Amino acid sequence: MRVGELSKRSGVAVPTIKYYLREGLLPAGVLTSPNQAHYDDEHLRRLRLVRALVDVGGLSIASVREVLVAIDTRDDSLHNKLGAVQEAISQPGAAQLDPLAVADVQAFFARHGQTECIDVTESNVTHMLAAALSSARSVGHDQFRDLLDAYFEGLKIIARADLEYVVRHKSPDDVIEAMVVGTLIGDTVIKALRRLAHAQVSSEVFSDGPAQN
Amino acid sequence: MRVGELSKRSGVAVPTIKYYLREGLLPAGVLTSPNQAHYDDEHLRRLRLVRALVDVGGLSIASVREVLVAIDTRDDSLHNKLGAVQEAISQPGAAQLDPLAVADVQAFFARHGQTECIDVTESNVTHMLAAALSSARSVGHDQFRDLLDAYFEGLKIIARADLEYVVRHKSPDDVIEAMVVGTLIGDTVIKALRRLAHAQVSSEVFSDGPAQN
Repeated sequence: MRVGELSKRSGVAVPTIKYYLREGLLPAGVLTSPNQAHYDDEHLRRLRLVRALVDVGGLSIASVREVLVAIDTRDDSLHNKLGAVQEAISQPGAAQLDPLAVADVQAFFARHGQTECIDVTESNVTHMLAAALSSARSVGHDQFRDLLDAYFEGLKIIARADLEYVVRHKSPDDVIEAMVVGTLIGDTVIKALRRLAHAQVSSEVFSDGPAQN
Repeated sequence: MRVGELSKRSGVAVPTIKYYLREGLLPAGVLTSPNQAHYDDEHLRRLRLVRALVDVGGLSIASVREVLVAIDTRDDSLHNKLGAVQEAISQPGAAQLDPLAVADVQAFFARHGQTECIDVTESNVTHMLAAALSSARSVGHDQFRDLLDAYFEGLKIIARADLEYVVRHKSPDDVIEAMVVGTLIGDTVIKALRRLAHAQVSSEVFSDGPAQN
């Protein structure tokens, strides 16, 4: 298909597609004449993934590029690829780390079978966790760490569902694409469903009158 | 304390404090002379909450104002206050709603005991959920809706822990403050712990070699 058709089928404007091509987020089409390129379903698929990362994940162009590099690297185990992709889509945030919050994270890992002391700044994910607990401490919520084990129990149920979803896809590329989309869109779904779960539990516990939902 | 001391104890720069005062996010201090105001621990507490909402929650000044109005409204049940606060801290995102995704949300509510058909755009939370499922559909992941029930099961465990945490606080204001901080910081903690749970499950399922974590 030509770029106009690619735009129509993806819902992405032609100038945006050309911007992605220049930034290397979308591989060049096959030239059919000096001024015309041909695109296929792989381009369409990749374009939709880029769009999901930008619109759903709120990722910068630089972060999208990191994710695509991780997906396109073929000489690595799927588990390692998934780890690299998760690092790219996990921003630790700007908060300063409180040493007591770092100790809380290390205690959490120790409770969950990690025998060696971890360096939380070595991974964006553990850094994100320590930064969030630091923020909690800075507003007087040191005790927030008490919730970690219950959270992890609930999240293992969710992670198992995520992985079952992901293994429905056959090729490694599709598995990783499903993981990226599922992780990022799942973050938002989880935010919304957690608030609905709060409303349900809160109406049982706090309502002064009849429950509103 | 004077504004300099308030700045020192909160870690917020004096010009930022003055900006919050002008924007009405922080109540005025008690004037001790025409050019000097006195601030107390309530100011410090409120300043830390504003900082948490801005830095942790990434809320705009307008959204922070909405949250504070909800917290400061006294003539309402705690359950309704919590609902109003949750609306203020829940942004639905810009995605267009896919009617099929809206139907998925309605089917989810029907499965969980909601007898009447809901209008998903009436609440930011249900709008957020429908928007996320719409994004999933736009990248070919219609089947993502299959995860909702497992997610909700995991999130009820988390919501119960959240509510137990919140009721440790005595005054209604403190309960709501804990709910706001816990919801927003909890979003980030959950993002991080979900990725750790993924890594744990993925190393069992996918690793081509020995597990890396």
